[in-house]
Amino acid sequence: MSEPIAVTDPADPRLADYTDLTDVALRRRREPAEGLFMAEGEKVVRRALAAGYPMRSLLLTARWVEALRDVIDSTAAPVYLVSPELAERVTGFHVHRGALAAMGRRPLPPAAELLAGARRLAVLEAVNDHTNVGAVFRGAAALGLDGVLLSPDCADPLYRRSVKVSMGAVFSLPYARLDQWPAGLAEVRAAGFRLLALTPDARAVDIAAELRGSGGGRLALMLGAEGTGLTHGALAAADAWVRIPMSHGVDSLNVAAAAAVAFYAVTTAAPDRPQQPA
Amino acid sequence: MSEPIAVTDPADPRLADYTDLTDVALRRRREPAEGLFMAEGEKVVRRALAAGYPMRSLLLTARWVEALRDVIDSTAAPVYLVSPELAERVTGFHVHRGALAAMGRRPLPPAAELLAGARRLAVLEAVNDHTNVGAVFRGAAALGLDGVLLSPDCADPLYRRSVKVSMGAVFSLPYARLDQWPAGLAEVRAAGFRLLALTPDARAVDIAAELRGSGGGRLALMLGAEGTGLTHGALAAADAWVRIPMSHGVDSLNVAAAAAVAFYAVTTAAPDRPQQPA
Repeated sequence: MSEPIAVTDPADPRLADYTDLTDVALRRRREPAEGLFMAEGEKVVRRALAAGYPMRSLLLTARWVEALRDVIDSTAAPVYLVSPELAERVTGFHVHRGALAAMGRRPLPPAAELLAGARRLAVLEAVNDHTNVGAVFRGAAALGLDGVLLSPDCADPLYRRSVKVSMGAVFSLPYARLDQWPAGLAEVRAAGFRLLALTPDARAVDIAAELRGSGGGRLALMLGAEGTGLTHGALAAADAWVRIPMSHGVDSLNVAAAAAVAFYAVTTAAPDRPQQPA
Repeated sequence: MSEPIAVTDPADPRLADYTDLTDVALRRRREPAEGLFMAEGEKVVRRALAAGYPMRSLLLTARWVEALRDVIDSTAAPVYLVSPELAERVTGFHVHRGALAAMGRRPLPPAAELLAGARRLAVLEAVNDHTNVGAVFRGAAALGLDGVLLSPDCADPLYRRSVKVSMGAVFSLPYARLDQWPAGLAEVRAAGFRLLALTPDARAVDIAAELRGSGGGRLALMLGAEGTGLTHGALAAADAWVRIPMSHGVDSLNVAAAAAVAFYAVTTAAPDRPQQPA
């Protein structure tokens, strides 16, 4: 257990993990380099711990001590008790959830490990927006995909905003990075996955028709960034292009909604998978 | 055609439609009362006009005159030319899209008219968040529903934020209000619709299983507000409760993603509807 330590100096070096959280460019570099990520709010802190991430330290205001008493009692990490004003000075924003944890990263599994155990994967190419990364993870986890593969230039799922928008799904859904892009997609295909590229291109086939024809084997659904979509290289590497049919003159859904629909189609259409009980 | 009129006084009464756009509470009351709504940006202005809404006036900065030349040339409404600074002083925000139109509302169709022509409807109860209203309309239009019914306390689809998030889908998808709630749902059922309530409640049946069994008749899919969901009264008025099965310990999707998945399930599962060509 850990006895909360009152900290009153914003320059206290023990708070270094929590400085300048609003400087996205800085934190994007710093957190992976230092093996660090932020869990914000009681629920997210608990989910990160439940997923097995080690806690480096916990920063909280007085009124959160009771709510997090069991966490404080069971951790060996230092617990820093600060005023709301100090929390804001250190982090750069009003910490309205009142609790922040600095968590330690773990090495990502190799892509081969993810491929070996999965049947339905999402593959994200260059999704740079942390909100969208979080939303796609939430949808992929909720709708029963087995994991996510990221292109080398995808945004960090453990960045604070991604974690928050995912509602912690980035902790429960396994993911890995492909080091080569798009060459690494050959490894996905070699593991027995059919690569489906989601695109609004008129030459793509209706995703439902493709899934009826694909026989329920392993599937990897490729998604690009909002606006730009998948690159030519990624589209060329796919086995098939699929699209969600659009009505009423609408040209697209936002990336989170499109991903959710496609994930639902993939996980419900597979004829060799038992239907979930009603 | 209309010759642009330069306006330099922020208190000019001709700009009254555009004042205090950031005061949500004020505009929520004022716009329906005055039969007014705002279209923001070239694309949305064009979509509102294409849908047949009358333009009361157009406010734009100099660099948008050429892009909107055809609109200016074909309207009888006054066109006010202002500096970016004046636009910001009048509206309360930086009008980065450079063009705003004050549009006239039209009477909503009676619910009976919408019910007569539709096979697949969304029914929204107390969705008070303009972003969510817009996102649900975008999904409903994109995925091929025929219209939307709103409970009396649903937020206004023509509020600026709803319009923007819907990408103009609030113009292309018909909608109506039910005056009585939940009593008005009896009218929906009397028109031959099966009422499906979307809820995470464990007693609900898998939406896919329900749709396989429902024989492709008329369907009205009921959605509640994020967080609170459908009220007891609305749930009690439904013919069946349906849910989207969740995995990996996730308890929900956000309302836009959940709505999109449910709309997709409804519009693709109906066995008596011809499949869209691949």
